[in-house]
Amino acid sequence: MPQYHAKVFVTLKPSILDPQGRTVERALAHLGQPVSGVRVGKYIELQLSGERHEVETRLQDMAVNVLSNPVMEDVRWELEETREVAGA
Amino acid sequence: MPQYHAKVFVTLKPSILDPQGRTVERALAHLGQPVSGVRVGKYIELQLSGERHEVETRLQDMAVNVLSNPVMEDVRWELEETREVAGA
Repeated sequence: MPQYHAKVFVTLKPSILDPQGRTVERALAHLGQPVSGVRVGKYIELQLSGERHEVETRLQDMAVNVLSNPVMEDVRWELEETREVAGA
Repeated sequence: MPQYHAKVFVTLKPSILDPQGRTVERALAHLGQPVSGVRVGKYIELQLSGERHEVETRLQDMAVNVLSNPVMEDVRWELEETREVAGA
């Protein structure tokens, strides 16, 4: 059965304030490293196996319903096949 | 001055246990969504401006010294130019 490596990116929606990002921004400014628009999100890696179409459906479901809060967060993912298990 | 959008990915080093990832993995298993190797990291977006070489140096410095803990975490980043401010 094909094996996949998934990368899931969870970010706060643009309209939601990000106090953690503001804190990082201020800390960097105090260190003489001016940056703007800092947003802190989550980056989740996981492995799953199955046929590609089915894996994509499952991953979308997990991403929206478990790994993120659709009220406050956006989520996107990337999927890459890692190996085919012999004899599957 | 060129403007850049940076994406910074902070992940726990492979040898470090990830209890948050284990919890997500178990929760997904209970929901009938078997996955393995869940690792939860941080995904930070920020904007900065300057000449590309200087921006890369600053970003590498921030990524290693502020945005991650080099003892426990790996960090990598991507940089993309967003626009050139007229007259800069």
